[in-house]
Amino acid sequence: MAERTEERHAEKMRKKQAAHDRIVASKTIEKGLLIVHTGKGKGKTTAALGMVVRAIGHGGKVGVVQFVKGAMATGEKRVFDAFPEHVEFKPMGEGFTWDTQDRARDIAVARAAWEEVKRMIADPSYDMVVADELNIVLRYDYLPLDEVIAALGAKPEMTHVIVTGRNAPDALIEAADLVTEMTLIKHPFREQGVKAQAGIEF
Amino acid sequence: MAERTEERHAEKMRKKQAAHDRIVASKTIEKGLLIVHTGKGKGKTTAALGMVVRAIGHGGKVGVVQFVKGAMATGEKRVFDAFPEHVEFKPMGEGFTWDTQDRARDIAVARAAWEEVKRMIADPSYDMVVADELNIVLRYDYLPLDEVIAALGAKPEMTHVIVTGRNAPDALIEAADLVTEMTLIKHPFREQGVKAQAGIEF
Repeated sequence: MAERTEERHAEKMRKKQAAHDRIVASKTIEKGLLIVHTGKGKGKTTAALGMVVRAIGHGGKVGVVQFVKGAMATGEKRVFDAFPEHVEFKPMGEGFTWDTQDRARDIAVARAAWEEVKRMIADPSYDMVVADELNIVLRYDYLPLDEVIAALGAKPEMTHVIVTGRNAPDALIEAADLVTEMTLIKHPFREQGVKAQAGIEF
Repeated sequence: MAERTEERHAEKMRKKQAAHDRIVASKTIEKGLLIVHTGKGKGKTTAALGMVVRAIGHGGKVGVVQFVKGAMATGEKRVFDAFPEHVEFKPMGEGFTWDTQDRARDIAVARAAWEEVKRMIADPSYDMVVADELNIVLRYDYLPLDEVIAALGAKPEMTHVIVTGRNAPDALIEAADLVTEMTLIKHPFREQGVKAQAGIEF
């Protein structure tokens, strides 16, 4: 009986492997991807940071521009600053926009961060560029959407570009190769009164 | 006209800030969270890796056990191995289960990885423990679900535990503090024949 279970399992796994091998063999293209992490759930920025880790580990050069985070000392900044030859990490925000209450200043901050992203994207020596929370800036109309879509569409063939933030505009989703929506199923902030904690939220 | 727009913006942002401040003030609890990343989309493992980066940056001690990934040299392993005082990184899998086609061996591999996770969870010197792809192992019934839920439920108060993998069992979602579902909106594998690439998938 146990033997038959083992056999059935091996047979099932052989079929799975054959199907998997066929799929892998049919996928031969290597290209830089335009990746979007959106949705109301957690994990949009952290999943981008995880991809930065992988790119660093493979010896790549990565640029990260944060549109919302600024002066606050985050865990990610401390770690990535240990790899100055591989990561240029630039928190260029000034906190959430309601901290400043000054639309003209917010626009200027967004513009400066976006110019930095454009510079990195235009330079083919970057393997990966992360525009963290760019979607939030687009949501507030702090940057012209057309300009952003055009610059992202003109990226070098092999560069991966990752854009994060809730409320990704439709035109960005349309232009992207890979879009993931992070959906909140359960959140301790809301349900248990747990505050933002080091290592999780920053 | 422009001035009125500025004023309206400032007023709107003041209200947002006040609402935000009230919410933050009401959240006072610090506690270790049981976090689950599930769903068919990308970003489950990478979002966990991003949290590992943050925890390292804050001087924490992190244990990572990978239930599926094994010998393959991943980007994350190379980076985390640069922080031996902060991360214990253990890829203990043997590839996807269909690579082995041997159920008894898969169970032994899962058991060894799980014993390592249990050891880390039981040791309060770990600030964060990641059980990467544990859900896949549970899906194949390679470990008793009751035993896993009991061990996770008995974790020290301040330890964060992150479990990843599609098809998280209901009992785990029930026990968790924070659950995020990664949903696939668009995928280049499927739609464009793009293969798994360094920096993105490994």
